[in-house]
Amino acid sequence: MGLDCIQFCGSECGEIVQKTFEHPLDLAADEVAVRVTHSGLCGTDLHFLKTDMVLGHEAIGIVHSIGSDVSLVQVGDRVGWGYPNWTCGRCDWCLRGEDNYCPNWKIYGVSDLDQGSLSTMAVRKEQWLFKIPENMSSEDAAPLMCGGSTVWTPLVHHVRPYHRVGIVGIGGLGHLAIQFAAKMGVEVVVFSATVSKRDEALQLGAKEFYVTKDVDDYSTLGTTKQLDRLLICTSAKLNLGLFYPLLSPQAMIIPLTASDGELTVPYFQTIRNGFSITGSVIATRFMQKEALEFAARNGVHVIAEKFPMTLDGVKGAMARLKDGKMRYRAVLSWDY
Amino acid sequence: MGLDCIQFCGSECGEIVQKTFEHPLDLAADEVAVRVTHSGLCGTDLHFLKTDMVLGHEAIGIVHSIGSDVSLVQVGDRVGWGYPNWTCGRCDWCLRGEDNYCPNWKIYGVSDLDQGSLSTMAVRKEQWLFKIPENMSSEDAAPLMCGGSTVWTPLVHHVRPYHRVGIVGIGGLGHLAIQFAAKMGVEVVVFSATVSKRDEALQLGAKEFYVTKDVDDYSTLGTTKQLDRLLICTSAKLNLGLFYPLLSPQAMIIPLTASDGELTVPYFQTIRNGFSITGSVIATRFMQKEALEFAARNGVHVIAEKFPMTLDGVKGAMARLKDGKMRYRAVLSWDY
Repeated sequence: MGLDCIQFCGSECGEIVQKTFEHPLDLAADEVAVRVTHSGLCGTDLHFLKTDMVLGHEAIGIVHSIGSDVSLVQVGDRVGWGYPNWTCGRCDWCLRGEDNYCPNWKIYGVSDLDQGSLSTMAVRKEQWLFKIPENMSSEDAAPLMCGGSTVWTPLVHHVRPYHRVGIVGIGGLGHLAIQFAAKMGVEVVVFSATVSKRDEALQLGAKEFYVTKDVDDYSTLGTTKQLDRLLICTSAKLNLGLFYPLLSPQAMIIPLTASDGELTVPYFQTIRNGFSITGSVIATRFMQKEALEFAARNGVHVIAEKFPMTLDGVKGAMARLKDGKMRYRAVLSWDY
Repeated sequence: MGLDCIQFCGSECGEIVQKTFEHPLDLAADEVAVRVTHSGLCGTDLHFLKTDMVLGHEAIGIVHSIGSDVSLVQVGDRVGWGYPNWTCGRCDWCLRGEDNYCPNWKIYGVSDLDQGSLSTMAVRKEQWLFKIPENMSSEDAAPLMCGGSTVWTPLVHHVRPYHRVGIVGIGGLGHLAIQFAAKMGVEVVVFSATVSKRDEALQLGAKEFYVTKDVDDYSTLGTTKQLDRLLICTSAKLNLGLFYPLLSPQAMIIPLTASDGELTVPYFQTIRNGFSITGSVIATRFMQKEALEFAARNGVHVIAEKFPMTLDGVKGAMARLKDGKMRYRAVLSWDY
């Protein structure tokens, strides 16, 4: 009674491998089998290429079957998931509604290594599945399950309608951050290494665009007014102090891409100006749901490069992501 | 019609000098002449030893005379002031009530260099003068005008009643931070380089005390539960990453003493755990007033070393402050 599945996996040598197996589909009471249709690709996926696991954690699919206690979704529903699969519901963070910091959670790359989204089918807990709004395409939805929720959360928590918001780097995260922020009605200022993204940034909702490549003194960029928030959406490691002359008192810098090593800022100016540097990860369940609704209501669209869900498709997408050439998010699908 | 004054000043060679001059006391409409009785001494004062200016900015005194438009204070009132003397009242920061970030302000070390608190008399704007609660001694009040307001502000803004608050370093700021936090009802955990301050820290309200000297791995300190906030009250530059294993998700580190150079924290862990590092400076006028009221109501007391307001007294206090030996705040007075 199993189901033949194809899965694309990391491997010890870093080569992506295709596996075929018969999925048993023996669901626990709170589990849901989802037939994957689309998957986004996230920078985090690159960290797991050398792990023997099914890759992918920006999933959209159709509910195939459900466990005996499942009530949040039904067979046939279109659903999505990101990197958490389960949170405990009883720690202080779950009790606060901040389940994206549950210390007991099961997440991509740590647990359920056989249930990624680059696959025909995955079995997931119902708890962290999200129904996709009807008027949203699956291409738009997939990258919202991680990239989108990552930029949505700090905008909701830390941005006020009268703020000027800087977005640094236009890529998978940045091109969504521009849209979310602009559609919240705030003034968006984009900083990019390359002038080639200017028109697209302005079309996405940026009011101002500045090219930072080879600029040593950002006060010469000509920004018209100080910035209240700065979202770092590039995976390149920046000299954050360069932005300090552009920031208003009490400005907040929010680095969103995980880097190794150290984060360094000027000590005195940070205190003197009441600046803060604030980490942030994906969204709570509540906020993930709201990110999807907001995006559907306001027309946040992913600019996607489409790849077929084949071994070549997966390899091609990973290579392009690794080279920093993606404009701006890969979406893979069995339908392409 | 002037008044003979003594002032203790910085000088080009870094020597503290005593000057005598006849204060003209020709008050502008919004000015107040205050006969100084007490002054605290702050780490910032050390930065101005080589500037030709009257030192001191934690002042308590009695109103001697007032300008024609003054209505906030009356002759005979006991008042205090800190490092701001004037803010514009019309910039975005003043409009928000966040006048401690007014970009147009006049402050100690930059403006009004002849009106410090190590002096017989100073002429100040009424706007940034604060009446001292009747039941508060002037020894307790003086250090609250800068050191106290510096620890009060982040506690009010960022601490919730269920937080565990770490205080790093027991000195002028730290010994006040312990009291303010404990009297807000939160659990206070103190980190100090030296065991000799343990008993005092516990008496001031700390629940736990840990000695960090020569410890490379703070997870071995034995703290019982994660910390939600960490106030850095020492002027020593710390390896903040050492505290990371002790922090809860979304913990906030608040460095309160201005250092040169760079502030460095682990990049990935900051993002992964949603930590933030948040600068903070003194208090708004509203918050300064409330800090005094809170301290009076709840019995926050300064542990002061007393020095006479003489050249020897000022020199002795500065030297002791510089050597990091003060327990915990100097108060100078014409009465000692």
